[in-house]
Amino acid sequence: MAELGEFELIERFFDRPARGAGVVVGVGDDAAVLRVAPGHELVLAVDMMVEGRHFLAGTDPERLGHKILAVNLSDMAAMGAHPRWALLAGALPDSDPDWLGAFSRGLFALAQSHGVDLVGGDTTRGPRNLCLTIAGEVPVGQAIRRAGARPGDDVWVSGELGGAMLALAAIEGRTTLAPDDLEPLVRRLERPEPRVALGIALRGTASAMLDVSDGLAGDLRHILDASAVGARVHLERIPCAPALAARLRGPERELALACLLAGGDDYELLFTARNVARGRVAAIGQEVGVPLTRIGKVTPPGTGLVVRGESGDALAALPRAFDHFAAPTAEQGGRA
Amino acid sequence: MAELGEFELIERFFDRPARGAGVVVGVGDDAAVLRVAPGHELVLAVDMMVEGRHFLAGTDPERLGHKILAVNLSDMAAMGAHPRWALLAGALPDSDPDWLGAFSRGLFALAQSHGVDLVGGDTTRGPRNLCLTIAGEVPVGQAIRRAGARPGDDVWVSGELGGAMLALAAIEGRTTLAPDDLEPLVRRLERPEPRVALGIALRGTASAMLDVSDGLAGDLRHILDASAVGARVHLERIPCAPALAARLRGPERELALACLLAGGDDYELLFTARNVARGRVAAIGQEVGVPLTRIGKVTPPGTGLVVRGESGDALAALPRAFDHFAAPTAEQGGRA
Repeated sequence: MAELGEFELIERFFDRPARGAGVVVGVGDDAAVLRVAPGHELVLAVDMMVEGRHFLAGTDPERLGHKILAVNLSDMAAMGAHPRWALLAGALPDSDPDWLGAFSRGLFALAQSHGVDLVGGDTTRGPRNLCLTIAGEVPVGQAIRRAGARPGDDVWVSGELGGAMLALAAIEGRTTLAPDDLEPLVRRLERPEPRVALGIALRGTASAMLDVSDGLAGDLRHILDASAVGARVHLERIPCAPALAARLRGPERELALACLLAGGDDYELLFTARNVARGRVAAIGQEVGVPLTRIGKVTPPGTGLVVRGESGDALAALPRAFDHFAAPTAEQGGRA
Repeated sequence: MAELGEFELIERFFDRPARGAGVVVGVGDDAAVLRVAPGHELVLAVDMMVEGRHFLAGTDPERLGHKILAVNLSDMAAMGAHPRWALLAGALPDSDPDWLGAFSRGLFALAQSHGVDLVGGDTTRGPRNLCLTIAGEVPVGQAIRRAGARPGDDVWVSGELGGAMLALAAIEGRTTLAPDDLEPLVRRLERPEPRVALGIALRGTASAMLDVSDGLAGDLRHILDASAVGARVHLERIPCAPALAARLRGPERELALACLLAGGDDYELLFTARNVARGRVAAIGQEVGVPLTRIGKVTPPGTGLVVRGESGDALAALPRAFDHFAAPTAEQGGRA
């Protein structure tokens, strides 16, 4: 395959005309110049994905293009922000046009479906590493932060949890799933759909929010720490796929608990809301077509995170959230 | 050395209170929330540095912390933008606190001297890779682009060119420099000082601008392409260190030409301005304390880039700009 130069590579695969408003200067200058809408604040996040850590060598590049943007869109969703612009920095071992073509197809398909323009970036040679910066907008003062949960608030989660981790366990041979169970879960793992419309719809209603990327227990603790409160969650209320629910009642309970409480990569939204807002939350879920489930309550400061099992007793130990700099455990070691 | 967890690492080395205005939410949420000043546009850029490509394993981490921010500040300078906020994504092979401490010292020292707040990021394990996103502000319509040069404009450059590449050649044993000549050039290579104040001061005066990161000839061509004009540059007017000027007249002329015309890493500003603005440009250089040199003229469309040598004749061939995806040449192969 022919090798491309750096400028040819950018022009051929990444320089597309901006379609959204607000782009004064896009790809091709020293920096992008953008107009944040009047009355809005800028919301900025970055995520890096490393070959051998977040994905394996040989992973379908179209899926990678989708995923590096999806995880960043999920951060926008978690703030209630409207994603607008992206910058892509990438180190690549070569400039294989087939790989680049598929990667850019995956990236731009998702970008276009959310009205996001790629406005800049940087390419270099090196061990494969994808780093995407996302910029969005939110009306002044309406960003939904991790701080803001109050005792008595309900704890809610969107969609289903643990599916991506269960799919990974099946792919790695640590459990066995029927093809009909496996297929939708693999899709969740490989092509997460960020909850952007839901995040925006929850402005003014959610009191605190984040996206579940490292696992329910660890991520909920971030809300509790930021809000200086505790929470009580009921295990059997955590929404999950039937294949996962079945495992909670059998010999693979440990795996199921790890998936539900420490499984990342689902990119669902976890949020709190005043209990008087229950009807409004339900209506928002209907409106955007995303199931929302009330899984527990915010409790007073100092009460920590308690997960009640099926018997009503608190689980003695919770699986740990994934930490890139901690030693891998049996449940987490496969998260390459 | 003790290994740190991801959250501890961020808290200990990268979570510092924001000092500048405009930071609504900084490190520690899903995204940063920022207020662009009224009447201003947002300016966004990203640069990635890879171990083994942009720097060698074992490079002083304090210097790396300085440099990853410096190259991004240089992109802000090149737009005439005021840098405000940074996001840092990094892949690291380990969480060595000594390395991290020195790296963050280098980063924050430069950040503070420019009033830049680190407002977010991402850390992961992997082959060492540093990716910094910079966000700045510019008054509406005043960003200085690559397009805008007109025939008859003067071509200007700040400071001196080629020094960083000559230092690298000396370090790699391809030439020999006296210690007094080498020391200031190594400093340019290792601790470039981005021309932020100059970039801001040139708003309304420069007709087109960029920072010289890939070499004068290649970067000037970017201005010519974007502006659809040509240019004529006089080799002997290109400002450079005495050690480099001496080499133009001796057996190392090829190396000297490569340094002057294709040497990156100097991070000087290259710009054009109407010839009626000569006095204003000179005054700006005085005001910000940066030498500015007129090296040539913008010529009509279709005339290309001509570099005139000492005899007045055009050089037959110009050294090529560095391309991360091109095969390395003798001059460029060492740029690791």
